Amino acid sequence: MFSETIELRGHIIDSLILPKVLDQILTHGANFKISEINIGKKRADQSFARIEVSAETSEGLDELVLRLRQHGAEVIERGNAQLAGAPADGVFPRDFYVTTNQQTFVRIGGNEVEVRPAMINSAIAVDRRKNSARAVKFFDVNKGDEIVVGHQGVHVVPVQRSTTHTDLFQFINTIIDADEPKAAIIRELGEELRRVRTAKGKIAIVAGPAIVRTGAGQHLARLIEAGYVDRLFAGNSFAAHDVERALFGTSLGMNPDLAVTRGGHENYLRAINTIREAGGITGAVHQKLLTRGVMYACVCHHVDIVLTGAIRDEGPIPGVTTDVIEAQKVMREKLADVTHVMLLATVQHSLAVASMLAPTTKTVCVDIDPSAVERAVEHQPLQSIGLVTDVEPFLRELSDYVSESSVQE
Amino acid sequence: MFSETIELRGHIIDSLILPKVLDQILTHGANFKISEINIGKKRADQSFARIEVSAETSEGLDELVLRLRQHGAEVIERGNAQLAGAPADGVFPRDFYVTTNQQTFVRIGGNEVEVRPAMINSAIAVDRRKNSARAVKFFDVNKGDEIVVGHQGVHVVPVQRSTTHTDLFQFINTIIDADEPKAAIIRELGEELRRVRTAKGKIAIVAGPAIVRTGAGQHLARLIEAGYVDRLFAGNSFAAHDVERALFGTSLGMNPDLAVTRGGHENYLRAINTIREAGGITGAVHQKLLTRGVMYACVCHHVDIVLTGAIRDEGPIPGVTTDVIEAQKVMREKLADVTHVMLLATVQHSLAVASMLAPTTKTVCVDIDPSAVERAVEHQPLQSIGLVTDVEPFLRELSDYVSESSVQE
Amino acid sequence: MFSETIELRGHIIDSLILPKVLDQILTHGANFKISEINIGKKRADQSFARIEVSAETSEGLDELVLRLRQHGAEVIERGNAQLAGAPADGVFPRDFYVTTNQQTFVRIGGNEVEVRPAMINSAIAVDRRKNSARAVKFFDVNKGDEIVVGHQGVHVVPVQRSTTHTDLFQFINTIIDADEPKAAIIRELGEELRRVRTAKGKIAIVAGPAIVRTGAGQHLARLIEAGYVDRLFAGNSFAAHDVERALFGTSLGMNPDLAVTRGGHENYLRAINTIREAGGITGAVHQKLLTRGVMYACVCHHVDIVLTGAIRDEGPIPGVTTDVIEAQKVMREKLADVTHVMLLATVQHSLAVASMLAPTTKTVCVDIDPSAVERAVEHQPLQSIGLVTDVEPFLRELSDYVSESSVQE
Amino acid sequence: MFSETIELRGHIIDSLILPKVLDQILTHGANFKISEINIGKKRADQSFARIEVSAETSEGLDELVLRLRQHGAEVIERGNAQLAGAPADGVFPRDFYVTTNQQTFVRIGGNEVEVRPAMINSAIAVDRRKNSARAVKFFDVNKGDEIVVGHQGVHVVPVQRSTTHTDLFQFINTIIDADEPKAAIIRELGEELRRVRTAKGKIAIVAGPAIVRTGAGQHLARLIEAGYVDRLFAGNSFAAHDVERALFGTSLGMNPDLAVTRGGHENYLRAINTIREAGGITGAVHQKLLTRGVMYACVCHHVDIVLTGAIRDEGPIPGVTTDVIEAQKVMREKLADVTHVMLLATVQHSLAVASMLAPTTKTVCVDIDPSAVERAVEHQPLQSIGLVTDVEPFLRELSDYVSESSVQE
Repeated sequence: MFSETIELRGHIIDSLILPKVLDQILTHGANFKISEINIGKKRADQSFARIEVSAETSEGLDELVLRLRQHGAEVIERGNAQLAGAPADGVFPRDFYVTTNQQTFVRIGGNEVEVRPAMINSAIAVDRRKNSARAVKFFDVNKGDEIVVGHQGVHVVPVQRSTTHTDLFQFINTIIDADEPKAAIIRELGEELRRVRTAKGKIAIVAGPAIVRTGAGQHLARLIEAGYVDRLFAGNSFAAHDVERALFGTSLGMNPDLAVTRGGHENYLRAINTIREAGGITGAVHQKLLTRGVMYACVCHHVDIVLTGAIRDEGPIPGVTTDVIEAQKVMREKLADVTHVMLLATVQHSLAVASMLAPTTKTVCVDIDPSAVERAVEHQPLQSIGLVTDVEPFLRELSDYVSESSVQE
Repeated sequence: MFSETIELRGHIIDSLILPKVLDQILTHGANFKISEINIGKKRADQSFARIEVSAETSEGLDELVLRLRQHGAEVIERGNAQLAGAPADGVFPRDFYVTTNQQTFVRIGGNEVEVRPAMINSAIAVDRRKNSARAVKFFDVNKGDEIVVGHQGVHVVPVQRSTTHTDLFQFINTIIDADEPKAAIIRELGEELRRVRTAKGKIAIVAGPAIVRTGAGQHLARLIEAGYVDRLFAGNSFAAHDVERALFGTSLGMNPDLAVTRGGHENYLRAINTIREAGGITGAVHQKLLTRGVMYACVCHHVDIVLTGAIRDEGPIPGVTTDVIEAQKVMREKLADVTHVMLLATVQHSLAVASMLAPTTKTVCVDIDPSAVERAVEHQPLQSIGLVTDVEPFLRELSDYVSESSVQE
Repeated sequence: MFSETIELRGHIIDSLILPKVLDQILTHGANFKISEINIGKKRADQSFARIEVSAETSEGLDELVLRLRQHGAEVIERGNAQLAGAPADGVFPRDFYVTTNQQTFVRIGGNEVEVRPAMINSAIAVDRRKNSARAVKFFDVNKGDEIVVGHQGVHVVPVQRSTTHTDLFQFINTIIDADEPKAAIIRELGEELRRVRTAKGKIAIVAGPAIVRTGAGQHLARLIEAGYVDRLFAGNSFAAHDVERALFGTSLGMNPDLAVTRGGHENYLRAINTIREAGGITGAVHQKLLTRGVMYACVCHHVDIVLTGAIRDEGPIPGVTTDVIEAQKVMREKLADVTHVMLLATVQHSLAVASMLAPTTKTVCVDIDPSAVERAVEHQPLQSIGLVTDVEPFLRELSDYVSESSVQE
Repeated sequence: MFSETIELRGHIIDSLILPKVLDQILTHGANFKISEINIGKKRADQSFARIEVSAETSEGLDELVLRLRQHGAEVIERGNAQLAGAPADGVFPRDFYVTTNQQTFVRIGGNEVEVRPAMINSAIAVDRRKNSARAVKFFDVNKGDEIVVGHQGVHVVPVQRSTTHTDLFQFINTIIDADEPKAAIIRELGEELRRVRTAKGKIAIVAGPAIVRTGAGQHLARLIEAGYVDRLFAGNSFAAHDVERALFGTSLGMNPDLAVTRGGHENYLRAINTIREAGGITGAVHQKLLTRGVMYACVCHHVDIVLTGAIRDEGPIPGVTTDVIEAQKVMREKLADVTHVMLLATVQHSLAVASMLAPTTKTVCVDIDPSAVERAVEHQPLQSIGLVTDVEPFLRELSDYVSESSVQE
């Protein structure tokens, strides 16, 4: 039998850290002995546990300890993180450490250094001179960069349950199903948006075409006009739908006031053509071709627009980043200082953005498809709220709420 | 080769009757020769076609002609319908004719008699003395009743496209998907409801528990109070949810103002217990135990309540018809004079009701699940509108619209 | 501040009992102080915790302690359960205790008595002379029966994680999604079925019409013939589909060998008529009218058939219990000794059966709709496996596996 | 009133051309008079109709006639197509004609020229010297290119129903739902694949990651080895999943033989790293690092691999076209000679490919999500079959069928 000793600290019981660690040990077919445990007597107290883990093979133990570290376990013997040089541009050394969605520290030269920015499913590049560490993707790494390998010296700190009730996201932190009430949550989200705006937080919207198609574009535009949106992430098709609606009053040829199909993709393509001729969205606004809609509101209110491409795109609209790797770089940069993100009616885009968020970014996902909501919020435990509903009434109510409460100020 | 001659009359091209007939012939591997055709030159004109159908076997031809009749074909040689006595109570004679969802006539003693009431998937019982025919289910038939067998002498008249644009249901007649706009349709439905109320039509609501759970019960109650509902069809669980909400403010223990689970099924069971103790819903209203909610509004505004049971039910609430065959009889009777039916957020109940509707009953189905909507409206061609959306905002908007327009009157 | 002391015993950390209890306390806005804790050092060791819970109101504390009891907490001061007489037939006394899906004990005359049979969402009736307690539904109770009120003297024992790996259901205990591999699980289930048959366990199948429609009836029949099914629970429509398939080779008129629609509900209604004329399924088998299919296999292999009704039913087939309350009584009785239940492609029926299972019944649910699977297994924690897949290949593979392994015996 | 005369030719009734034309006229609020009609008497005969269409405004009539042309109507007065030069690179002239999913001809210099290649939602560029026309996307057009504007001189020929029964796709041409039988269709598809291979048709597979995740990769590899696949279209993630499975036996860390999660994205990222280090998939095969799986089979059997990128991608794997516009160009080129395409378990990719297909390409779509299937096949009327099912058993059965029948050859 091979064994190693791990330690856990914090709200290890009510934040489920200790149970998850024991579960991992059992699932791996290993054994444990709790050599010391000290449970906080009151809610605010921290707890502590020291556990001796034993497994039948050295490899099995190593694999297991890696998992336990990902749940916040610290290994007693504190070595520095092991580093290896990237063998080529865009290639990590074998056995590179893969990050989780948690706050992470690496021990370099005897000091614990926080990995910043943090991002899930990345490697960790260390700059020993600057005593810094950052999460890196394949495209970030150059030959010779020092990358953490193995898991020694890596320490993960799971998001822990706050001990107060003031945090809406920890309090709700669930998915509201199709047959559950949403009115109260939407009001609470309205309150949260107001707090964020006052506190100078940064709010990003990730917007799918269904917003325009269902007629909710006007409500999103109102949120923008009222100053509740700092960044807009969308695909080429969202922008094209919005422009079609603004120019022709239709959405894929469908007139929202009558719901009768007239002409399918025609107006959609003509809208794109108009923007291409005008040199882009900003150009079309300045030439007074585009005088309404979400994109118009973004231009007028200086909201950063981050448009990215997909293989189904028509056009594209000028300004869309068509190279997906370039797009990831831009998105990551534009998400770095975002404190709150709303993922609205767009599965692919939501998943892309969700995978780039810092572990502490508050996340709201709204979609009529329950599995889309589930996948979008799964990596933001204790930080996310999902709503399974039609995006149009959601945006209408949210926008009504913040407008009314603004008036009352 | 065996052959028979059929005739088609009416708007046989734009109502798709002729294309469907030719399609059936081809699908059955048979052949056709159009011996006479006279296409209406203008929109309002009727058309006529006489077609000689030929197939390789006599049985194949017979089977095919049966299908063609179901699409409205008339067979030249006009015999009376063939009748046979039911061999026992609740048993049809072999080879009984099975009805479609269309207006149907049978030839008795040389006269065409309309089958009334009409209902899909039934047999036809004929009363020769009264010169009448009606659709019958297994439970309707007694030994010796005369039932139509084969398909000779049966003539079906498909719903044909109206030649004017005034009918909302023919004009829209589609399913509005999750990502399509609903606001305009909801307004049109509001207008339709007002017209129906004025014209003394009968409006039935088929209501699922999600109405209460999402907090839409108050909006349905407003529709009832404003006189827009004549009948309410629901299951035991809808009533129990509504009463739980009225008595405890919760829904399966969930408080709609906060969305925090407290106690699961407890309040639900206590609500049922309270109603059982009071002897039923009307009793509970009279004893002032029940003072709000949908059931309360129904009692106060004399809306017929038709509650039926299912094997998942708790209770039941007194007044629920727990025998499903008895329930079908009651439902059928209470649907007989209904002109408009709204199927709201309840798959099983909606399908049950939809299968009992006359071919001309206007139908609206609202559900967040697209396949539920599709199945509920498929038997009401040219008479139905489906909306894939959250039932709460739908009912809120509809109820707001009819309230506002009432005020303006 | 009001306070009470609770105790927890068993695998309270890795079976998540302690974390859930602390979570409930926090969610209720209450406070805790752990006055004693003793964590099992090794996997097989039991743990113990004594916790002082305090809340601002007496009612809030009482409500909270009720919840904690439902998670297995025992209250120090050990009184007998409080009893009250039922005020009328079918009515519980106010404040009746509502059962959970866990093993439950009540203290009567100083002794702890297990509630048997146990069932979720029921009241508890006590027979003091026999020193026994049982879960009762509304329809079970007669005026004067002694029912547990409040929660004093009630002790719940949550299912705890086993300390060995031999239990497939605890080991897997999850939902296998549409895009996840199922082959290995199906083999393990096959092994489990063989063990159950050898150990004289009782296997119940809850079967939906999609089994017949997809052509999987033959595979279910093979399972029956091989002795792997003791009870079959289904609706009228399952039986009717199966008989239609057996008599006409079609399913709602569709021929599975060609997938071309011929005649919709006609054959379905004729099949029902044939069985009605024969006096029922057994009669039809004895008269050699019915010579294949699932129902035929059940009759030949003496499998108990429990058929229940719904408001959408045609017919019904003789033998169907059409009163839903009667049906519940029959189902409950026929489920009492079942050790394993497979819920196959039928949402409503699965939920009805799932709500009647003892907490220890092993449950497998197979459906192509993820939300159906989720709802069906949610009440059997640590005892259930869900598979999101097409039921036809599932039954084919399972049936192939047990056939092959039988041959090799 | 403004009026114009149109003509229809072919199987205008059973291919629904005449009914759709009349429906469009009515929907647009216009009027018609059938001045001449000649219905084919037998199945193989062609029909003809001349219809005078009248509308209240000149614009309304023009808009309507455009729609009628898209359904195959020819306008009597036969002018040449009108052309205008592209005002800039990547910009079409205003009022450019937008193509449908049908075979299309344009009249140039008095001659009808077929648009080749044809593609939906494109403009038409004309080369008058070469007397040729082709469908062009924004990225295809250069300043000054001659583009068709308006709809004069454009003639569309809808796919018409064949008069024989030999075509599987016309015979089935439907979506097989989750609860419908698939075995017979899968055998028919197997037969079709054999015919295509013999006839030197080109078969393309569009593959989603669920193929690998469900364990169906081996079955797809068998199809490739047996020579049934000419092109493979997939995203970066399909390739990465396949390589992870080949190198580590896992899929997102999940081991298909046991369904226990081990390590999430780790192996996925390591697999990508390995391929990046090897310089690509072909490199990895040659270096004997990659020795199994779908990508391996493609390399060994010279199947064209077309890999494209999306914003959620990790890596990418070398060889992936990360620019989405470049990717569209490659896909279009590689689809040009494809006769049959199978869209397997991938919504986004399927929709992208479906929008690039020629109107005559036979299409099969398999997905467990009904709405994905519906959207993927909607543009290939009379040419497509959809199956709502789990992709693993589908590919297993198909691959078993063609293997067995190959053995019997």
